[in-house]
Amino acid sequence: MNIVLLSGGSGKRLWPLSNDARSKQFLPLLEKGDGTMESMVQRVVRQIREAGLDADITISTNAGQRDIIVNQLGEDMCMVLEPERRDTFPAIALASCYLSLAKGCSEDETVVIMPCDPYTQAGYFQTIGRMAQAVQENAAELVLMGIKPTYPSSKYGYVVPVTTGGDVRKVRRFTEKPDVPTAVALLGEGALWNGGVFAFKLGYLMNIVRKYLKVADFDEAVARYSELPKISFDYEVAEKAESVAVVPYSGEWKDLGTWNTLTEAMEENTVGQAIVADTCENVHVLNELDMPIVCMGLNNVVVSASAEGILVSEKNESSYIKPIVDKLDNQIMFADKSWGSYRVMDVGQDSMTVKITLNPGGQMNYHSHDHRDEVWTILSGNGRTIVDGMEQQVKPGDVVTMARGCKHTIMADSLLTVLEVQLGEISTQDKKKYDTIQ
Amino acid sequence: MNIVLLSGGSGKRLWPLSNDARSKQFLPLLEKGDGTMESMVQRVVRQIREAGLDADITISTNAGQRDIIVNQLGEDMCMVLEPERRDTFPAIALASCYLSLAKGCSEDETVVIMPCDPYTQAGYFQTIGRMAQAVQENAAELVLMGIKPTYPSSKYGYVVPVTTGGDVRKVRRFTEKPDVPTAVALLGEGALWNGGVFAFKLGYLMNIVRKYLKVADFDEAVARYSELPKISFDYEVAEKAESVAVVPYSGEWKDLGTWNTLTEAMEENTVGQAIVADTCENVHVLNELDMPIVCMGLNNVVVSASAEGILVSEKNESSYIKPIVDKLDNQIMFADKSWGSYRVMDVGQDSMTVKITLNPGGQMNYHSHDHRDEVWTILSGNGRTIVDGMEQQVKPGDVVTMARGCKHTIMADSLLTVLEVQLGEISTQDKKKYDTIQ
Repeated sequence: MNIVLLSGGSGKRLWPLSNDARSKQFLPLLEKGDGTMESMVQRVVRQIREAGLDADITISTNAGQRDIIVNQLGEDMCMVLEPERRDTFPAIALASCYLSLAKGCSEDETVVIMPCDPYTQAGYFQTIGRMAQAVQENAAELVLMGIKPTYPSSKYGYVVPVTTGGDVRKVRRFTEKPDVPTAVALLGEGALWNGGVFAFKLGYLMNIVRKYLKVADFDEAVARYSELPKISFDYEVAEKAESVAVVPYSGEWKDLGTWNTLTEAMEENTVGQAIVADTCENVHVLNELDMPIVCMGLNNVVVSASAEGILVSEKNESSYIKPIVDKLDNQIMFADKSWGSYRVMDVGQDSMTVKITLNPGGQMNYHSHDHRDEVWTILSGNGRTIVDGMEQQVKPGDVVTMARGCKHTIMADSLLTVLEVQLGEISTQDKKKYDTIQ
Repeated sequence: MNIVLLSGGSGKRLWPLSNDARSKQFLPLLEKGDGTMESMVQRVVRQIREAGLDADITISTNAGQRDIIVNQLGEDMCMVLEPERRDTFPAIALASCYLSLAKGCSEDETVVIMPCDPYTQAGYFQTIGRMAQAVQENAAELVLMGIKPTYPSSKYGYVVPVTTGGDVRKVRRFTEKPDVPTAVALLGEGALWNGGVFAFKLGYLMNIVRKYLKVADFDEAVARYSELPKISFDYEVAEKAESVAVVPYSGEWKDLGTWNTLTEAMEENTVGQAIVADTCENVHVLNELDMPIVCMGLNNVVVSASAEGILVSEKNESSYIKPIVDKLDNQIMFADKSWGSYRVMDVGQDSMTVKITLNPGGQMNYHSHDHRDEVWTILSGNGRTIVDGMEQQVKPGDVVTMARGCKHTIMADSLLTVLEVQLGEISTQDKKKYDTIQ
């Protein structure tokens, strides 16, 4: 079985911990059980592996998330990168082309498409196993997961089955985000929420793809990605399918998309440096800064802090953060990279100071800047720099200066922290990358 | 007339904006009227000058506050530095020795002692003028200010006058912090709060000083400071005085000693980068960090942030901050110096990164460290460094490295910002100062 995790979004609703460089699924805020923390996507990948599904995992994402996926899931995680942002059908079509044309999977193989960040229990993955089995048994062309509704929500799409018994039910029809009275009626019919999990045989989807795109290999599919229609998988596939079945799931299922829902899933009330006085009730603190947060006399409040800013919000109100945060300056103040991470420490008129952390073995691209000089001061660890082809060992206290135009990179032999001062016209666009070091 | 401002305290109750290096009286949080901000002590000095009292000002303080006083009030502000912390009587005695023995004031001259940070109106300073006049008219040996009580507080000392009429009233007795029923009775007697403002002739106090300390000059007074008894001015002088008068003041009088009282005196609800959503009521944000604070759905809350930490507190609760903050690590993360200011940006295992801002003309002491190397990277401005006697011009992008043991200083020709990386064993104790540059 191949499981394709869809990883998209920019997730401003969890500002300031999420930003354009770190979507909500990458926030390391969930207790793993062994005292360490993991992100939503790390949790899902771990749960898939623990479920004994014998599934290969592929992540469908974009280039902007490549580094953080390597950082969180390792170099070996299989990724399909969309060349441009379109919609869920093209993204799933491209992942299917990868499985078929690059990985050489048989057309009879089961593919399961799912979001990368639902907060669920083991039963969710057993349900996925049952869905895959239903596909192999040819119960339907398309099998999807139906979440047992807990209230007549107008936020979700509904799947109306023909029968209300059995663990694989024929689907009669879909209803997108109904009003509440309609939702009440749907619940009476035994309708389920559409959980966005789809299972099918690879050949089924490839037949649909071939209507738009006949390609010889995966590279051609990437090159001609823009020819795929900008349409959702629900409209292009689910609603047009001749036979659809649904497998119900009734365990825990949460979208940790707001501070309110996310803090409910946290084991501890604080992450990072925090003192919450006894006079507080139902207060959560999530602090990525190197300084303490002290809370006194608060009720039902979330405080969350990163280098991008500080949010203090009544918990229910926190769902309305997006329009407020959209007004803020969008400068990215921290990011996880394949080689480690960086954090902006200071922004001046014509300077910027950045603290860089390279994981052991991590290495930046070989690159140069046209409009700024840079100074590296090694704070801790050991490594090597290459500046205009010259390699040198570096240790704490060493200073490396790079004039504009000069090519440079740094490699970590142990965990390496470096202070980088940028001087000149500072722009994220001002970067040339080189494939070979010379 | 000589006015002596008493400036002491470490002021953790306004954490994180006040710390061991910046007491509450130096927080630049009060609107000056012209759109700029001033601190409590700057406000008091300005009010004295605007009151037309023809008064010389002397600040009685300790060495730890010297730099910030120069920074806020200029090089010319007259200061008397206690060689050690004792109590208010020795501090006032030393200031009197300074006026008599160093400045050469006549023993007939009026001295007014007052706190450096009351939040008051112009009438307060007119009352001081009236007190000085009463001293010159020999109304009493000691004349103090009586604040018209607004409620039967058990927080203040009370002054009970013989009569309840007239603007200069003979004092019958003092009562220290009574319980509430006693305070109610005192109000019935026409008692006033003791505002901590005392006026007397210099000779009067010098006669008391000479009981403990007969010195030839001011330097000897400083050297023998420890011979003065550790006792408050109230006990040693006010309660023993043969004749005491009180001049009442009934205008605004506030101790801005807690976030609750301080925010009441603020013109604007926010200082620094802040977005307070419409869903907030009675929320104040005081933000010294280079990042936005967003508040949503809060009621009666103060949020205050500096490099030392972030406080989020219901306003009344904020008065109880001291025991909580006492538990925190006491590392000073920012300080105002005579030459400018510094802020700790990053603390590592064996490194610390500090951003230094030197005002034009500002210059550090010539100094060295035994256990750490330092690297300066100039971020903006122009200046000169001297390293082991060698002077060089510096401009943005220049890097100066100083090995341990090496003597160094930096001077600003224009506003100069410098990133300093310290490497080695980091300690505030590790500093040798040199008088001459060689």
